[in-house]
Amino acid sequence: MCPYTTAKIKEKIGSGIFDENPGLILCGEMVGPDNPYVPQDTYDVDSVDFFIFDLMEKQTGSFLDIRRRREITGQFGLKNVNNYGTYEPKNVHTKAKEVIEKLDKEGREGILLKDPEHEVPPVKYTTSRSNCSDLHFAYRYYNDYGSDFVHSRVVREGFQSYEWDEDKEETRERAVRLGKSILHSLKKTIEERDKGEKITENVTIKVSDLRTAEKFKKHLEKQAVEFEVKEINELEDGYRVHISKVMRPTNDKTKSLLQGDLW
Amino acid sequence: MCPYTTAKIKEKIGSGIFDENPGLILCGEMVGPDNPYVPQDTYDVDSVDFFIFDLMEKQTGSFLDIRRRREITGQFGLKNVNNYGTYEPKNVHTKAKEVIEKLDKEGREGILLKDPEHEVPPVKYTTSRSNCSDLHFAYRYYNDYGSDFVHSRVVREGFQSYEWDEDKEETRERAVRLGKSILHSLKKTIEERDKGEKITENVTIKVSDLRTAEKFKKHLEKQAVEFEVKEINELEDGYRVHISKVMRPTNDKTKSLLQGDLW
Repeated sequence: MCPYTTAKIKEKIGSGIFDENPGLILCGEMVGPDNPYVPQDTYDVDSVDFFIFDLMEKQTGSFLDIRRRREITGQFGLKNVNNYGTYEPKNVHTKAKEVIEKLDKEGREGILLKDPEHEVPPVKYTTSRSNCSDLHFAYRYYNDYGSDFVHSRVVREGFQSYEWDEDKEETRERAVRLGKSILHSLKKTIEERDKGEKITENVTIKVSDLRTAEKFKKHLEKQAVEFEVKEINELEDGYRVHISKVMRPTNDKTKSLLQGDLW
Repeated sequence: MCPYTTAKIKEKIGSGIFDENPGLILCGEMVGPDNPYVPQDTYDVDSVDFFIFDLMEKQTGSFLDIRRRREITGQFGLKNVNNYGTYEPKNVHTKAKEVIEKLDKEGREGILLKDPEHEVPPVKYTTSRSNCSDLHFAYRYYNDYGSDFVHSRVVREGFQSYEWDEDKEETRERAVRLGKSILHSLKKTIEERDKGEKITENVTIKVSDLRTAEKFKKHLEKQAVEFEVKEINELEDGYRVHISKVMRPTNDKTKSLLQGDLW
């Protein structure tokens, strides 16, 4: 369990909902720029916030329906993920495309299509921007991310282009987007490493008590993440801690290739 | 051992060189449009031909020097791979880039940098065209080719762009090439499969005796390659047999994804 996420849950969600509903599990996502796992500036969130997408009954493993979820989360002032409405399965693709195109422009990840009765498993549908941003990230740290991660994103781009019946020009634009997201971050990594720089992923956490940052550092050490604390800013309501994660496999591989070793 | 390659060696190389040099192993490559493994039209070869790149002594495992290799191959009328000269290691990169740029325009694969004394292991250097053509091929059959195959080709593109100090426009062109080679063949596969077509790799062999074709078919069966013989053309000097290899994993995966199964 991540001590930072735990502290943030205490701060943002509190214990009220758990005290009054001991039989419930909250399913949600932590988003925002101070999320050290998936830093995202695209959501309208200052530091970090939680968005609930399901409430599950501990005993039965079954999910509450959306009306009941909204009631309970509303009662405790919790945010739900955005809901774009309920549609018949045979018509939903039109709406899905419309929403995906909108989210793509906003730089967001995508949607889940969920059965209100929770009988059919949910389907995730991602934007092209999100696929390309994943590829950008994966090639920035090309020896840390598995090639399978890359492969599935690329194949998604092919299917979306076909599904949307893109013409020659649209397909070309998608190909350019794809090629750029791969090549540019790859080249940046090689260039920086050749200058002797370390390839790092820079994240921040915001804590009200520095002891939480200490616990988080121990947590990273336990997970064998190599990192450095670069800076600590004192804020009115706590501290922002800047952490560089050193991507060891990509650093070592790039250095070795630059020195003339073979793949 | 492939019975087709064996028959072609008998036909094109003959037994003379082996009879007179029982201690030698020929190292070479079969190229041309009737090569069922790597069909390539880019070489100036009618059907198939062999190009020798090394002669090895069976007993010691050591290689003959280039002068001696040329002597022996010349004596039996065998072709050697093209040689672009001998250079000092510290200067060779200039020549290598020049040759690679020329080969890239001709659609060829690349070069090997070899120590004339065979002490330092050889270095393979591929053209961007060859990397992209590999990617095109790999995404045409995206579930048959491992993602590692793809990954190494992509990373090569990043290193070549950096090594050649490409400017913004050149990097952009490379990114477009990369993106297109991936997306276009992927989309073609999805489109054809959705029409109910089978995704196949179409190859040809040219045999003087149809029994060689029969042996080759048995060889493919033993290797669990699924194939169909589509056509047999009678030629003046033999037969050309057209074979479709069915890429089962890509066919099945694409069909399943098109039917709505998840990745």
